[in-house]
Amino acid sequence: MPSVLGRLRSVVGDEHVLTDPDLCAPYETDWTGRFHGHTHSVVRPATTAEVSEVLRICAAHGIPVVPQGGNTGLVGGSVPRGGELVLSLRRLDEIGPVDADHGEVVVGAGATLAAVRDAAVPAGWDVGVDLAARDSATIGGMVATNAGGSQLIRYGAMSRQVIGLEAVRADGTVIGRIPALRKDNVGYHWSGVLAGSEGTLAVITRVHLALVPLMTDRAVALVGVDDVETALRLVGRLRRSLPSLLSVEACFAEGVDLVCDHTGMPWPLETRTPVLLTIECGTSRAASSGDEAVDGLLEVLGEADEVRASAVATDEAGRARLWAYRDRHTETVSTLGVPHKLDVTIPFDALAAFHDEVVERVHAIAPDARVVQYGHLADGNIHVNILGPDPDDDAVDEAVLRLVVEVGGSISAEHGIGIAKRDSLALARSAGDIAAMRDLKHGLDPTVLLNPGVIFSTATYRT
Amino acid sequence: MPSVLGRLRSVVGDEHVLTDPDLCAPYETDWTGRFHGHTHSVVRPATTAEVSEVLRICAAHGIPVVPQGGNTGLVGGSVPRGGELVLSLRRLDEIGPVDADHGEVVVGAGATLAAVRDAAVPAGWDVGVDLAARDSATIGGMVATNAGGSQLIRYGAMSRQVIGLEAVRADGTVIGRIPALRKDNVGYHWSGVLAGSEGTLAVITRVHLALVPLMTDRAVALVGVDDVETALRLVGRLRRSLPSLLSVEACFAEGVDLVCDHTGMPWPLETRTPVLLTIECGTSRAASSGDEAVDGLLEVLGEADEVRASAVATDEAGRARLWAYRDRHTETVSTLGVPHKLDVTIPFDALAAFHDEVVERVHAIAPDARVVQYGHLADGNIHVNILGPDPDDDAVDEAVLRLVVEVGGSISAEHGIGIAKRDSLALARSAGDIAAMRDLKHGLDPTVLLNPGVIFSTATYRT
Repeated sequence: MPSVLGRLRSVVGDEHVLTDPDLCAPYETDWTGRFHGHTHSVVRPATTAEVSEVLRICAAHGIPVVPQGGNTGLVGGSVPRGGELVLSLRRLDEIGPVDADHGEVVVGAGATLAAVRDAAVPAGWDVGVDLAARDSATIGGMVATNAGGSQLIRYGAMSRQVIGLEAVRADGTVIGRIPALRKDNVGYHWSGVLAGSEGTLAVITRVHLALVPLMTDRAVALVGVDDVETALRLVGRLRRSLPSLLSVEACFAEGVDLVCDHTGMPWPLETRTPVLLTIECGTSRAASSGDEAVDGLLEVLGEADEVRASAVATDEAGRARLWAYRDRHTETVSTLGVPHKLDVTIPFDALAAFHDEVVERVHAIAPDARVVQYGHLADGNIHVNILGPDPDDDAVDEAVLRLVVEVGGSISAEHGIGIAKRDSLALARSAGDIAAMRDLKHGLDPTVLLNPGVIFSTATYRT
Repeated sequence: MPSVLGRLRSVVGDEHVLTDPDLCAPYETDWTGRFHGHTHSVVRPATTAEVSEVLRICAAHGIPVVPQGGNTGLVGGSVPRGGELVLSLRRLDEIGPVDADHGEVVVGAGATLAAVRDAAVPAGWDVGVDLAARDSATIGGMVATNAGGSQLIRYGAMSRQVIGLEAVRADGTVIGRIPALRKDNVGYHWSGVLAGSEGTLAVITRVHLALVPLMTDRAVALVGVDDVETALRLVGRLRRSLPSLLSVEACFAEGVDLVCDHTGMPWPLETRTPVLLTIECGTSRAASSGDEAVDGLLEVLGEADEVRASAVATDEAGRARLWAYRDRHTETVSTLGVPHKLDVTIPFDALAAFHDEVVERVHAIAPDARVVQYGHLADGNIHVNILGPDPDDDAVDEAVLRLVVEVGGSISAEHGIGIAKRDSLALARSAGDIAAMRDLKHGLDPTVLLNPGVIFSTATYRT
């Protein structure tokens, strides 16, 4: 397709159409190493107008496109399956001036979460969603996947941070409105349609973000408890009595042992307990009359019979040290092999039983598999990591997801469907619902050029 | 269509298919009296399954349907235009048990806001959106129109209160998931697609609502200031320093005079000022260490040079008395004629000029028209009410909306497009954007059976 490449080069510049396999390689494999495919070219536009032109050219030639942000997704939704063009949005990284009065900023889809936070913090604001991949994950990708992260109980998922957005359809048409208005009911809400659509309906190019007040006091506690049941009781207490609550994360002794082995960190508490909770509170200057975050947290923990051992930190280094035991699970697991990563939500009343049952179900299929669980306990969101089974063997994945559906959970809490879970979609959604999703896809991308194979396998499209 | 009526009766029961013109009349005219049409029948199903059956029958016979909740909309989106069947959702009024631990409840689309609040309050929770039509407005209608109301600065619009929903497509297919999970990224988000879609894409039948903590301390201040500029400066101060802020509403001396005439209430403050702000603060028990709401409010107001006169109330009767000056504008205006109601958002930096300019633009067309403005100042959301011009003459509406677009505002802040503003849609959205909206409509309702003529005029559909 030399003439197509020439046209693409004339739009984005020669150096931003990559065809050299070595240069394309980083765009072809996902963060976990589990999902990879081949692309003939990676195109790196810098503006919405360039994205529009690139998509117009692709549409004219029937070339399918995989939009890619920071490529930090975990379900294979941002890497080519076979032959698609990769549209990298990372050069759309402009960050507008922060509106310090109203807590708003317009950012390019390719701006990383860390870069936006760096711009917001000096103005007294922050982004409501935080996650470990903050240095690479882009705002566009986070909206397209409706990223969740560790502060969802306080601020909601990424969709809630969006005042408005601009996007480009498969045919090159620009839709949406920037700057957006917080109160604006003029027709359909593209932010509501596109958040969580995983690049299958349109390519997000700019986002008008609502920021949250910067936390000025933060306190982190690492708390050891005896079991999941007890942990959930404590979570309920914290939620009811601590408005400053930002996060309640869980990990488990076996996982913490692996993290300690990998990092050389010591066991964090004076007592060894089966369950460890990472609890963070924070208050903003406006709301605060002093050390509310730490006082409130200490008060609740002091009265909690459930707590077997605890460590608290308020300074930045100390907080980071406590968070590391939870945060470094992901990298630790990756050093042990290519994990099957299942990101699920379990209703609270089924969570304790699920924690044990999931191991049994995995071992029934793969007796030697290692199961490492951790996650956002206050949301019921557990990341089940399974090491051992071949990356291409989906048997354990399916067994876990079936269990999740049995107990009324979600087969994808925050990572989306991608290609990893598309064959399980029918477990979670009715045939009529999936047909409606296909109709929505068909309405907005009738020739299936945007991220084909993501959410639905291509065979199920109507075309 | 006797055989169709027979089939409908067999689904919902004889008494719930209304054909008598006297019985149908209340469903045919909107709250303002400005929008009305004729229907051959009003069908009142009681369950999602009945809604599905009714829509299946209508689809089979090509009968267009207008979904209707409390019929409190102000843009003609819930009354028939000519010959559609009215599908009343009011009998879907079941309210499930309130989850007191997590602040959630599943409600039928026909449950009124007031009824849901009555169920939530004893459990220590409330609904984040409040509006004057609370006794009639239904939750389904509020989601379908993405209702805003007076607490948007604190809790966001209706779309933000939705954890998940269940809806029925034009062909009778049930979509969505109830109960929903707060963290659930499995495919497209129907709540994001349907919130604000005004009944044109699917009929919402049940909603899983996120509640907000019940306010235990509330304080209301009615504050007189000299002009809009000054009022906005005060709003900025309140937003930055008062986390307990729930509402900042504005009305103006001319409107308050009308309200006083209509209600017999005296002028509310010791001094007459051109602008009156209704400010409400509230704290929940968990966050509160006493009278935070009133203390914080008094402190900020005490330091504000802008305040010319003020009255504060913390008891329920006193708060209601102060709110009445703002809340009773709507009914007062209605006693003076059939108003043209334009609900717009104006960027803050253009608001003061807009307040004067809009009167000039109206008077250029209708010199004798009376313009009454009030609204949700902290959102930049102004309700422009125009009395005088014939209800069917859209010239003043168009002049106002053109001004709104000129200054970068929204032609519909919270009421939606309905039929009232569909001809102005092209002022606010690009041709490409409108084409994308039509494609979305076409994808989900290809034969245009749901609320035809709402958002787009039927002539612009692709079919």
